[in-house]
Amino acid sequence: MSNRILQVPYGTADILPGEAAARRKMEDSIAATFAAWGFEEVATPTFEYLATFGGGGRVSDSNFKFFDRQNNTLMLRTDMTAPIARLVATRLQGEPGVKRLSYRAQLFRYEEAQSGRQCEFTQAGIEMMGEAGPAADAEVIALAVTALQEAGLTHFTLSVGQVAFIDGLAKAAAFNTEQLQKFKHCLITHNAVGLKNLVRQQHLTGPLAQVMEELLFLQGDAKLLADLAEKLTEPQCLQALASLQEMYKLTEAYGVAAYVTFDLGLLRDFDYYTGMIFEGYTPELGYPIIGGGRYDKMMAAFGSPCPAIGFALGVDRVALALARAGKLEINRLTDLLVAYKPGALPEAIKACMDLRAQGQSVKLAPRPCSKDETPEAQMKVARCCAYTLIGKAE
Amino acid sequence: MSNRILQVPYGTADILPGEAAARRKMEDSIAATFAAWGFEEVATPTFEYLATFGGGGRVSDSNFKFFDRQNNTLMLRTDMTAPIARLVATRLQGEPGVKRLSYRAQLFRYEEAQSGRQCEFTQAGIEMMGEAGPAADAEVIALAVTALQEAGLTHFTLSVGQVAFIDGLAKAAAFNTEQLQKFKHCLITHNAVGLKNLVRQQHLTGPLAQVMEELLFLQGDAKLLADLAEKLTEPQCLQALASLQEMYKLTEAYGVAAYVTFDLGLLRDFDYYTGMIFEGYTPELGYPIIGGGRYDKMMAAFGSPCPAIGFALGVDRVALALARAGKLEINRLTDLLVAYKPGALPEAIKACMDLRAQGQSVKLAPRPCSKDETPEAQMKVARCCAYTLIGKAE
Repeated sequence: MSNRILQVPYGTADILPGEAAARRKMEDSIAATFAAWGFEEVATPTFEYLATFGGGGRVSDSNFKFFDRQNNTLMLRTDMTAPIARLVATRLQGEPGVKRLSYRAQLFRYEEAQSGRQCEFTQAGIEMMGEAGPAADAEVIALAVTALQEAGLTHFTLSVGQVAFIDGLAKAAAFNTEQLQKFKHCLITHNAVGLKNLVRQQHLTGPLAQVMEELLFLQGDAKLLADLAEKLTEPQCLQALASLQEMYKLTEAYGVAAYVTFDLGLLRDFDYYTGMIFEGYTPELGYPIIGGGRYDKMMAAFGSPCPAIGFALGVDRVALALARAGKLEINRLTDLLVAYKPGALPEAIKACMDLRAQGQSVKLAPRPCSKDETPEAQMKVARCCAYTLIGKAE
Repeated sequence: MSNRILQVPYGTADILPGEAAARRKMEDSIAATFAAWGFEEVATPTFEYLATFGGGGRVSDSNFKFFDRQNNTLMLRTDMTAPIARLVATRLQGEPGVKRLSYRAQLFRYEEAQSGRQCEFTQAGIEMMGEAGPAADAEVIALAVTALQEAGLTHFTLSVGQVAFIDGLAKAAAFNTEQLQKFKHCLITHNAVGLKNLVRQQHLTGPLAQVMEELLFLQGDAKLLADLAEKLTEPQCLQALASLQEMYKLTEAYGVAAYVTFDLGLLRDFDYYTGMIFEGYTPELGYPIIGGGRYDKMMAAFGSPCPAIGFALGVDRVALALARAGKLEINRLTDLLVAYKPGALPEAIKACMDLRAQGQSVKLAPRPCSKDETPEAQMKVARCCAYTLIGKAE
């Protein structure tokens, strides 16, 4: 019978009634949190010129690309950082002060799809432009924690690293360009052996060698920062540690320090980060539910140099974590069915409108009720909590 | 300096702070109306297999197409009717009763872009599946009116036609396939001369010829329907007119009849409509802000035959109409700036969190205030309505 394709493309999914409403409610809570912190919503096109994503973002095989009629290459956006940087560098160029922006967007990456990792996914996030330093870092961390809490999550941890710390180590190790790339690759792929080999290649010794070899395991609380600051001498590393310490102190003022842990070997596979970075995890999922960091050099690529920091929360992933924890409330019930006797349709319609005006969700019965189809039966099929029957007694 | 492309692709646009919030508020009002009428939200992928859009929708040069790794052709969705038909035919197949579904989605058509007509645009709409007849038609018309009202529009008209009426005329005229196509093309392109020629080709006479020649000008209120019913004899035309009359009577019960006008020559350039169709206009814009109708045959193409009706509201167009009418309220102010004296940052952070917990939107000052940068000056730059200053007197 059917001549249409009934499948959805690889790595995409339908969101069903009930589930969509629960997700919408969760997204609205996140967005309300962003607004309460003074972050204003913006929206950008679903696709951009390939060159807008330039060196940042993920320009690779994993993009969906196509052409416009002038043969320009377009791509479905892979993240919102570059598009918002572009927007700030153009349309908001003249505005003074710190820019606090937020978004809710569909994003696209051609990856091996699995539960919670799809080719099309939804992110809600923020970008804060024009302010450097630990106070801005702490604000962003605290907002990330609050947004996850408002989404309904209770058990999660933000793992915080510092790209400037890693760069400081690389500088002290006097890596050449190739070694530097290998070094970062080892961190991203969690290759402890490769890391050890690199350190030995450079004949490094003492605390520097020890810290670099252990880099993938440098996870802990604020005490870890103090210990490292005592061991190391590289000024850039010390400055990065001091900045994290200051940031951590401010997260205590925000009341979110309990959610923060440090992971000095953390490197995210976006190459644009320059300072504090973080990823958030929850016990229900094996991959991050949120990620972000400082990218103080990207705006220069758009002709408007300024410090910047942001994060993106994976809406599908948080929804999945909530569902696995039994906390995604799916409700498909309408408040009321307005059933009616034969001939009473206009009256039933008026009743519907009155009840809706009073704030109730109301479905109108598709047919007058009958012996075979009582209001009770109609109510069940229509998934309503209750019914009212309109029409005079016979 | 910049090495990134700063432009957005042809026919796309950024939505700026303030504007995005105003649109979000408008969309939320529309979505709340859908929910109040028992329509449940669903979401589908941004792109689908080309074959999912099959003969319906707009499969043509005006689609954005690309390939997956298996060389299947994908397209950015051009409308939501086919995707929701697919979803209902698969995931909701087993559910009894009438299905009332709603959506908010980005859509894509490669067209000549102009103000309010973009290649990427947003629609909010509904589909009602499993119910035929004038009661369902009237519900959909009444919901369209209510959604536009809740969006903030006051001056608009829904122009209602009937594809079965037009098909009945074509049957009575005994057009061959080629003539039938020409006939419909004349209606879509408003070609009155072409229409007259076709009627003369068939040597039609009497009321049938008169009605067909005047078809593009058959616009008016319910009296027009009665006049036509007296003139014509073709049973399909009479049945279509009776259905419209019955539907109109029910819109009176809904209290929306004042927004309804009839246009018997109306034909939308989607080929899947089978019964009542409509388009909505507002004085501020030269193209429809909403459109929809009955498509009782599409579900069969997905293997699940059932009657269906729906509409799509153009969110960008309604926003533009509201803006032109001076009714799109753009507010970029945050309630409060928390400014602080040197050393009082942790205390200021706590104040922010308390104020947010009380429901206020609050920005934290980027720096301690100083002689050069008073709280008043900081408040203005940060676009806040008021400020509070934290920290002990010096």
